[in-house]
Amino acid sequence: MAEALFRRLAIIGIGLIGSSVARGAREYGGIAECLVICDADLDVLARAQALGLGDEYEADPARAVAGADCVMLCAPVGAYTALAAAIGPHLAAGAILTDVGSTKQSVLRDVGPLVPPTVSFVPGHPIAGTEFSGPDAGLADLFRGRWCLLTPPPGTDEAAVRRIRALWGILGAQTAVMDAPHHDRVCAIVSHLPHLIAFTICGTADDLADETRQEVLQFAASGFRDFTRIASSDPVMWRDIFLNNKEALLEMLARFSEDAQAMARAVRWGDAAYIEDKIVRSRKIRKSLIDLKQA
Amino acid sequence: MAEALFRRLAIIGIGLIGSSVARGAREYGGIAECLVICDADLDVLARAQALGLGDEYEADPARAVAGADCVMLCAPVGAYTALAAAIGPHLAAGAILTDVGSTKQSVLRDVGPLVPPTVSFVPGHPIAGTEFSGPDAGLADLFRGRWCLLTPPPGTDEAAVRRIRALWGILGAQTAVMDAPHHDRVCAIVSHLPHLIAFTICGTADDLADETRQEVLQFAASGFRDFTRIASSDPVMWRDIFLNNKEALLEMLARFSEDAQAMARAVRWGDAAYIEDKIVRSRKIRKSLIDLKQA
Repeated sequence: MAEALFRRLAIIGIGLIGSSVARGAREYGGIAECLVICDADLDVLARAQALGLGDEYEADPARAVAGADCVMLCAPVGAYTALAAAIGPHLAAGAILTDVGSTKQSVLRDVGPLVPPTVSFVPGHPIAGTEFSGPDAGLADLFRGRWCLLTPPPGTDEAAVRRIRALWGILGAQTAVMDAPHHDRVCAIVSHLPHLIAFTICGTADDLADETRQEVLQFAASGFRDFTRIASSDPVMWRDIFLNNKEALLEMLARFSEDAQAMARAVRWGDAAYIEDKIVRSRKIRKSLIDLKQA
Repeated sequence: MAEALFRRLAIIGIGLIGSSVARGAREYGGIAECLVICDADLDVLARAQALGLGDEYEADPARAVAGADCVMLCAPVGAYTALAAAIGPHLAAGAILTDVGSTKQSVLRDVGPLVPPTVSFVPGHPIAGTEFSGPDAGLADLFRGRWCLLTPPPGTDEAAVRRIRALWGILGAQTAVMDAPHHDRVCAIVSHLPHLIAFTICGTADDLADETRQEVLQFAASGFRDFTRIASSDPVMWRDIFLNNKEALLEMLARFSEDAQAMARAVRWGDAAYIEDKIVRSRKIRKSLIDLKQA
């Protein structure tokens, strides 16, 4: 087998994404000679060890990153500032620091200033997931055929970017490089707003009178079922995403709300042509998705 | 084999739901001795015949219902007034008229006055479907394990209600009887509003600048993909549902919009506890759904 991309890879946070990277690294090979698993939650860390996800296990992130030539943050983005402060002084010269967070301007803001000048910083965001959480939920093939978006700040060592692209390539993902503000706008509409809507409509249903609420569940049609699947994602992770992509999320919600009000007006006034046109357009988007093999 | 429930069942409209009933009737038996398929679209009717979905095929609904002891309307609810006017004078004395429309107050309003006094009227709504349409899309087991809600007007012959319940029972569905306004409110929140939202967010994405729109599709995350699956449903059917459940749909949209604005406010002001609480609540709803085996 060819030499691995990294000698020592430290994964900080071993939830759905971290444990999927760890499983993929073991299943496909060529990513790291030694995989260090770190999680501040000792129960989670013990579970990762019981599952045999890594080669070494470490609760203290400062110790986990010592001597690692690649460090991947896989914790909720709200924990990044504290994590970066803890690991910054212990990162090895020449190491690459990357992550999998869903908001990228916040990562540049929170982590960037704490990265030593000898370390290359290549933020990343694999667009993949399930509604499950924790080290048991990971899948070696979670990233196969999916995109991983990279947002290295200007001046980042290109060799470091290539190595992170190679890592995701081994895991089966395509990579694209873009700037962080653009990333955050795209993800606000394709991911963050759909989640906000799904969480909200579940609450709206929950607020109905007790008797009606029971029937909401009992007769839940396919539309609502799909929404609750989305809505069962991890609360802390999504809370942090919303708070760390505030501007783009609020803008996309404002656009959506305007459009929903326009649809409501068409329903109230019986504008059949307007309603049908909007539905036909959404079918076209669906067709484009299928053509792009993302559906 | 035991005698069939009906001697002659006429299915008016052979799309996803109609063709699923037809397939189920053939697969499970005991529903009708003779199945008459009717569709005003001659191409659709020819396709149903090529698929062998029925015993007789008839483009004219007045002729299709002649001599039938059960007639099931499976057309978009917007076509019901014209259909009821066409078939009313030709319904056989003692026949049962039923339907599968998603809005029930409108069905009582549009069809009720045109039903002869010798005919029993048992409106129904099977809560099942896929994102596909047309006679090829039907599935014999589409209704297995699902609910069919019945909204017979006061005074409806109970034997007629029992026979329609038996029909859905053969197709594998549970039935529940409720009044039409209550049905429309429950379906507004579990089905109609989720579809309105899905159609709308697809349009919101489509309105983004060309370059961004391409990336919306290319990087579509799981959240958005689920929305587009919902949004690919039949335009005419959904247009008619929105227009025929206006009051309940607008009320549920207003509730949802208030809740979405409250969430936006929490995001803007960094109210982490509020956001997390809402996400935790939606997970609980998800769990309830799983417990009720509807997920």
